[in-house]
Amino acid sequence: MDNAVYIQSGGPTSVINSSFYGVILQFQKEEKINHLYGAKYGISGLINEQLIEISKEKDYSYLTKLPGAILGSARIKLTCSCEAIEKILVNIKKYSIKYLFINGGNDSMDTGMILNKVFKERNIDCVAVGIIKTIDNDLYQTDFTPGFASAVNYIVRSIMEISFDIRSYQSGRVTIIETMGRDTGWLCASSSIANEYNLGPDLIYVPEIIFNEKKFIQDVEKVYKKKGHVLICVSEALRDENGNYIFCDDFNLDSFGHKQLGSVGLSLCKLVKNKLHYSTRHVEFNLMQRCSSHISNKNDIKWAKLCGINAVKFALKKQSGVVVIKIKNHKFCYRLVDFEEVANKVKKMPREF
Amino acid sequence: MDNAVYIQSGGPTSVINSSFYGVILQFQKEEKINHLYGAKYGISGLINEQLIEISKEKDYSYLTKLPGAILGSARIKLTCSCEAIEKILVNIKKYSIKYLFINGGNDSMDTGMILNKVFKERNIDCVAVGIIKTIDNDLYQTDFTPGFASAVNYIVRSIMEISFDIRSYQSGRVTIIETMGRDTGWLCASSSIANEYNLGPDLIYVPEIIFNEKKFIQDVEKVYKKKGHVLICVSEALRDENGNYIFCDDFNLDSFGHKQLGSVGLSLCKLVKNKLHYSTRHVEFNLMQRCSSHISNKNDIKWAKLCGINAVKFALKKQSGVVVIKIKNHKFCYRLVDFEEVANKVKKMPREF
Repeated sequence: MDNAVYIQSGGPTSVINSSFYGVILQFQKEEKINHLYGAKYGISGLINEQLIEISKEKDYSYLTKLPGAILGSARIKLTCSCEAIEKILVNIKKYSIKYLFINGGNDSMDTGMILNKVFKERNIDCVAVGIIKTIDNDLYQTDFTPGFASAVNYIVRSIMEISFDIRSYQSGRVTIIETMGRDTGWLCASSSIANEYNLGPDLIYVPEIIFNEKKFIQDVEKVYKKKGHVLICVSEALRDENGNYIFCDDFNLDSFGHKQLGSVGLSLCKLVKNKLHYSTRHVEFNLMQRCSSHISNKNDIKWAKLCGINAVKFALKKQSGVVVIKIKNHKFCYRLVDFEEVANKVKKMPREF
Repeated sequence: MDNAVYIQSGGPTSVINSSFYGVILQFQKEEKINHLYGAKYGISGLINEQLIEISKEKDYSYLTKLPGAILGSARIKLTCSCEAIEKILVNIKKYSIKYLFINGGNDSMDTGMILNKVFKERNIDCVAVGIIKTIDNDLYQTDFTPGFASAVNYIVRSIMEISFDIRSYQSGRVTIIETMGRDTGWLCASSSIANEYNLGPDLIYVPEIIFNEKKFIQDVEKVYKKKGHVLICVSEALRDENGNYIFCDDFNLDSFGHKQLGSVGLSLCKLVKNKLHYSTRHVEFNLMQRCSSHISNKNDIKWAKLCGINAVKFALKKQSGVVVIKIKNHKFCYRLVDFEEVANKVKKMPREF
């Protein structure tokens, strides 16, 4: 009996369930896999034996329409020798798991890397295959990441609509829109696509560029004096010249040691109000940018699904690693790279962007 | 020469430009109106002679797709004897305006009422017709208001998607979603439509119900202990037993004397964190709920357009007043009521809702 388990991990996207659907589609085609289990609440489902069996015949296409991580997700940090690993190995054996799929971002690929290492070290007949997802687009070795295009759809469309709204008033204000993106500005910078229609932000601030308060105030004043209103797009995190996060007086650490950030947009509004006395408004795209499946990118759904399909194909060839997307001669290729090349790494935006 | 002027007023909606389109469509059909002017930035366009001529032939159907107030809006309070009135009357004469259309909410109908009164008192051959709009649905004498249904579309759809997102994690948090609605809870309460799909809020707080802090904390604790996470929907304003706004330390008054509110959602999150030590998240639907035209309700666009069309028809019969929508025997009727019955009044939600 050769079985498989599929795990959702990290923050949800609008299309992570489409990757799940891809895995299911290929599982339903392949005679080599007898049973496919979905782990409830990420890796903890495999630790605590909370596994849902997926039907070999049922139509799961509705998954492509659902946001969130339908199986449930988790943020749990594993080490090679932890107690959780032993529990996982018990269940891998108990359920005859020969193929393990983990769908997540760079932290989740760390989990995949550790599991893969343990399987090899202990001669366990199971391959781990990672399936990338993140709205942040910050994964290495892939030309882009499923989840990103749908978030960009939401951001660009919403900024264009907000532009129409804020232009309704003559005596304008400074509107500061905050996007996700803790370490990278891909999402925030994508707002500039709206400028092709003259409906985008006047100023963009990303974590890759050191934030200079004096320069910021000068920039805002300059645009306001020219146009009467300013539209700013900012990433949820900004850094000073020493690389420290700014505007986060009130943060905690999550289980991966990442700082939980305060509201950069609100802090910048206060700054503008104090220094320039302009009227301000703070808009946060918050959860909507990663869950607005009503405006998902259709190609993004397709790419996510194909990552899932290809993960199963690689696994059946007993190949482990992470499925990434490469664009070569205008064609999309799904390649497998080592976990080490993706795990815990952050792909920053190049300066020329 | 018989000409007309059309004015957009107050906060924009996703469909106010559809009412403008309705006015244009009927103007293009009617031989009695020679020229139609759009006032730039609300009533101030008529005061300062900033008028845009609308073509008798051109296709303006793209207006039904654009959010914001395309001509520009304003919040200016008129009195019968103010200097602005005299400037308006000069331009009414100069441009041979016989029909004045003002598209707005209860404050804007106050402007329409005053203009209509002045026209009658001074024997000026001009009728004023109001065209209702507001996402708040708080206007008297109408069964509902164009703009509301599209905002509801955004709110309900987004809450359902957020529900999927927050259910991704086992160790949940208290998510507080803030909708617009300063005096009435129509928008906030509409979120309960999502409960038909089991994806709506667990708790709803509206301005019509006195906010009781102790009861609030008890309610949140009860749901959290049962479900592990809580989804709350709250209006941007709440009141204590004396009718005073709460959670607004930092407000100003706008030109109509309305308080500019602070962030209720953020204040409630702090309250939950202090009293119950639960993890919280604050989501504000902000401008998106009134400008997300990509998810506008198609019927709402139609109703808005028909309000514009009917306004022109009434005006040509020399009838002044406000065009409202009545539902009789499952049919929609567009009626004219006196400005006094709509201006400055707020239709609160009945208790039984």
